Amino acid sequence: MENSSSVSDLIDQLGRLPGIGRKSAERLAYHLLRVSQGEALALADAIRNVRENVCYCSVCYNLAEGPLCPICGDSNRDTTQLCIVEQPRDLMALEQAGVFRGLYHVLLGRIAPLEGIGPDQLTIDDLIERVRRGNFSEIIMATNPTVEGDGSALYITNQLAEFPVNVTRLARGITTGSVLEHTNREILADALAGRQKI
Amino acid sequence: MENSSSVSDLIDQLGRLPGIGRKSAERLAYHLLRVSQGEALALADAIRNVRENVCYCSVCYNLAEGPLCPICGDSNRDTTQLCIVEQPRDLMALEQAGVFRGLYHVLLGRIAPLEGIGPDQLTIDDLIERVRRGNFSEIIMATNPTVEGDGSALYITNQLAEFPVNVTRLARGITTGSVLEHTNREILADALAGRQKI
Repeated sequence: MENSSSVSDLIDQLGRLPGIGRKSAERLAYHLLRVSQGEALALADAIRNVRENVCYCSVCYNLAEGPLCPICGDSNRDTTQLCIVEQPRDLMALEQAGVFRGLYHVLLGRIAPLEGIGPDQLTIDDLIERVRRGNFSEIIMATNPTVEGDGSALYITNQLAEFPVNVTRLARGITTGSVLEHTNREILADALAGRQKI
Repeated sequence: MENSSSVSDLIDQLGRLPGIGRKSAERLAYHLLRVSQGEALALADAIRNVRENVCYCSVCYNLAEGPLCPICGDSNRDTTQLCIVEQPRDLMALEQAGVFRGLYHVLLGRIAPLEGIGPDQLTIDDLIERVRRGNFSEIIMATNPTVEGDGSALYITNQLAEFPVNVTRLARGITTGSVLEHTNREILADALAGRQKI
């Protein structure tokens, strides 16, 4: 016997989520069958709502439920600092840390030639235009510390060369709370190269 | 800044799923924002469909999309053997193994006094009635090999004492492909107690 078609379909759909394998998808499907109708439908509605209500901010490409995201709409932010991130979730991580009060620009990806993703598919043109018209004194590159993230930061830095702004990037080194023994060569090389006076 | 309310709500709903923590819920939510509208809504619809179309079989309490589940509606099954399982997913595991051709009865849980689940909250009354009216020659207990599963099997066995049926349970022992070295005391005790002539 196969699962009934509705159950099979749900398992298939859940199995398409990242990090959810076949067994997990089955477990989640049976969970959704067991909980109250209200709880199951609340999840269905939340997915539908998010796709119907959430769009990208017209200025910075953060997630928004209107033309401007809460950050671009906040007049208390420091408009001289602009932090470049790959994805809205990176922006969220920085906001949750609560250590940056400037504005953001979300690239919505990174340059990855092997995946066929070039600068044109990101929001780099809008970023350049924003820098041209804004009065930013510092652009902080907060792309991920990967080959693609570093490559994207370098590309953007070159594009911004004509403007009178400081371009910086997040510090790299040993992570707070880690142990040197379990730190790899690349991390130690970065940490040594960026050593600071105490 | 907080996430927009739709995104927060989706993260909350995803975080209520078993085995999905806060970070995983965030990752899944951003995934659902990034995929095509069609793919995201397909998941929402699959959840809604499953709750609107799937009910319990009126005979065995397996999941069904009509009065009878595919197994109870299949005239080729052996109607003299009845296998008792806790949940539809246990039934599914047995069916996927393809080694049993009889009928099933799903308890929809197990007796768990510590959680306040007694025999009345399961489908045991219907099971007794089914055995009374059917012509089963063997009832196979396939509840989980846990304290609650074994307790439920024992309770049901006592309830069935008045009927002329053989009540059996799934064999216990070392699992195929495992190594003795990593097998615990309870498994070895079961394996020794149930040793078979070769």
